[in-house]
Amino acid sequence: MELNISPLAPAQFAELNVIEGVELFTAPIGAGYKGRNNLLLAKFSEGTKVAGVFTTSKCASAPIDWCKAHIENGVARGLLVNAGNANAFVGKVGAETVEQTAQAAAAFIGCTPQDVFVSSTGVIGEPLDPAPMMETISKLDESQLGDYQAAANAIRTTDTYAKGAGAVLVMDGVEVNISGIAKGSGMIAPNMATMLAYIFTDAPVAAPVLDALLKKANQKSFNAITVDSDTSTSDCCLVFATGKANIDPIEDLDDPRCAGFAEALNAVLHDLALQIVCDGEGAQKLITVKVDGATSDESADIIARSIANSPLVKTAVAGEDANWGRVVMAVGKAGQPADRDKLEIRFGDLLLTEQGRRSPRYREEDAAAYMKNDQIEISVHLVLGEGKATIYTCDLTHGYITINGDYRS
Amino acid sequence: MELNISPLAPAQFAELNVIEGVELFTAPIGAGYKGRNNLLLAKFSEGTKVAGVFTTSKCASAPIDWCKAHIENGVARGLLVNAGNANAFVGKVGAETVEQTAQAAAAFIGCTPQDVFVSSTGVIGEPLDPAPMMETISKLDESQLGDYQAAANAIRTTDTYAKGAGAVLVMDGVEVNISGIAKGSGMIAPNMATMLAYIFTDAPVAAPVLDALLKKANQKSFNAITVDSDTSTSDCCLVFATGKANIDPIEDLDDPRCAGFAEALNAVLHDLALQIVCDGEGAQKLITVKVDGATSDESADIIARSIANSPLVKTAVAGEDANWGRVVMAVGKAGQPADRDKLEIRFGDLLLTEQGRRSPRYREEDAAAYMKNDQIEISVHLVLGEGKATIYTCDLTHGYITINGDYRS
Repeated sequence: MELNISPLAPAQFAELNVIEGVELFTAPIGAGYKGRNNLLLAKFSEGTKVAGVFTTSKCASAPIDWCKAHIENGVARGLLVNAGNANAFVGKVGAETVEQTAQAAAAFIGCTPQDVFVSSTGVIGEPLDPAPMMETISKLDESQLGDYQAAANAIRTTDTYAKGAGAVLVMDGVEVNISGIAKGSGMIAPNMATMLAYIFTDAPVAAPVLDALLKKANQKSFNAITVDSDTSTSDCCLVFATGKANIDPIEDLDDPRCAGFAEALNAVLHDLALQIVCDGEGAQKLITVKVDGATSDESADIIARSIANSPLVKTAVAGEDANWGRVVMAVGKAGQPADRDKLEIRFGDLLLTEQGRRSPRYREEDAAAYMKNDQIEISVHLVLGEGKATIYTCDLTHGYITINGDYRS
Repeated sequence: MELNISPLAPAQFAELNVIEGVELFTAPIGAGYKGRNNLLLAKFSEGTKVAGVFTTSKCASAPIDWCKAHIENGVARGLLVNAGNANAFVGKVGAETVEQTAQAAAAFIGCTPQDVFVSSTGVIGEPLDPAPMMETISKLDESQLGDYQAAANAIRTTDTYAKGAGAVLVMDGVEVNISGIAKGSGMIAPNMATMLAYIFTDAPVAAPVLDALLKKANQKSFNAITVDSDTSTSDCCLVFATGKANIDPIEDLDDPRCAGFAEALNAVLHDLALQIVCDGEGAQKLITVKVDGATSDESADIIARSIANSPLVKTAVAGEDANWGRVVMAVGKAGQPADRDKLEIRFGDLLLTEQGRRSPRYREEDAAAYMKNDQIEISVHLVLGEGKATIYTCDLTHGYITINGDYRS
């Protein structure tokens, strides 16, 4: 199936700074995808720290099991990613494949296998033969070194564009860089909606600090997006810090430099997360759902997800229909405290409802004009408390059905 | 928009016995839907008992508020339903409209307004003018008495067929009848996915007993179906018992006759619930999701709903793709106890997965042939405990997007 580039794609791949201590090799495996590079091997300098967040799926893939087992060490020398086969739900051979390919990467890098983090994305349930990957790794040479765009392209499955985002900040008078790549959430039967993200920085940040900052950044970025409420068995986000920037290490969260680094990290993750939503299957519009005035942030989050995951809300946006009744419905079904007669719903700046009914200021033509935008903001003010949350999603179109339902028919 | 009759529709409307003590009037209101009867007024004999279950929405409609306020009395003399306008989210005038139309119905029947139960279905956010309804009610005469099919037709919105189901049982040597009608869950912008069901019986059942039996029957029927995980502001199911069958009243749940009545009531609700799923927007296939071997029934229910509501599972079924990887994904994302390496997944009788991988007995051609059926059973055996649950849903097709997204474009 030919996939058109999402109309919400950025005009071009982000300009990303090189991170000292990171070497990116890409190569074709000769399986999974023919005629393109679908293997990424990142080699990190000694002393590189790592932190990660992983899918909450109870049926996680073998590579996820491997990464979780080694992330506590906090050190990394390599990252190995293949696209085309998720090495998920293949029984015991899945773990064996991870171990063998990690060993091959470790031999190439000159480190122990547990310092190599492994991801796989693609078909699930098909055994992944380690032999072609090991062969490819053993033959890597400097001619296969590439930039972040090459790396982002190598990890794509059905993404319609490569995804990258970066930040530069100054710490102690020294330039510090963050460059990140991601893939997701294009899906194609029988593939999975895997979201993978890898962030590289030269900041010298201790692993526990990196872990805390990543978990926080993740909440407002990758955990705040939803295409169809489905969660992959292979989702993962890893941050690698080479420490090559010539400043004193950041050893704890009380370090005043954490704030600036966290802000930059948050921005990179947020940018990548939105790029993923904008590449949601069939997406024609980016939808931002903002809920405030809830009894708590948790309550706001549940309500915002109820709206963002509602097929009726998402099809209405696809149809450019300012159907606020479906937003009322989605607030109501969330089961969280809400007062029908206080609720205010806005599309952009347009007030649609107040006092339990359509606003007297509402004009159908204003709403119809607003719905033609390719970025739609739905905001709900509950007038009950201080809780708030923002969730990002995309509309639900015929393209989604075609990509996910028509593949074999 | 023209809606084709669902391919899953029954060949004909059920043959339902007349319930003594129930008179069904239908008439056109002259608003909401032109040229068809869209008002149902059911008149019940004195002594009729009632029980009900209602939407859990926190933004429930004015008619739901009314019914909830009076259901505790346990007595009913009338039921008034209009199709075309849900009288939902219209502010204070919503409650006034309910009260005025209930008064008109009460005057016609000769009872107090609180003994008249009211439902509205259709557009939300548009004030419902009570005047045409009151006018219509005041002019009702015996020429407008109809049968259950006429009543089921009057409450339709975008249902592609009228829905009825009944049962006959013998109690103490006397024939006892249950006849029920329902509408849902066809939706069309800007309408809501309202599910309404009304069950009529001549069994003399006390209101508290009726309430307990209804709540139990509802769990395995209307609460076990899902089209798209969205919940209307107006859902309701009411059971009316006229007591005209000439047997001693059933006054408590220990009465041995409860078992037979409960079984018949369950069967009627189950039949209606499946008819609603089969009329899900764009539905081409009925999907039964059975989960067993879970650590508890509640856990099984959450996993079954995770599968039944997964857009990826539903589009795969639409595409006749035996994509068990998506079922693994949906089990994994449910967050309930599950062991990837024990999980068994079957489509019909075909074992697809065991021991954390594709079953060696799996043959793609068998699965492809099975997926061509219009009723698909997905069963998941968790091999952890005794918990089980069954949820019914339909596939997710282009028809859903067309009905819900393309209306105004």
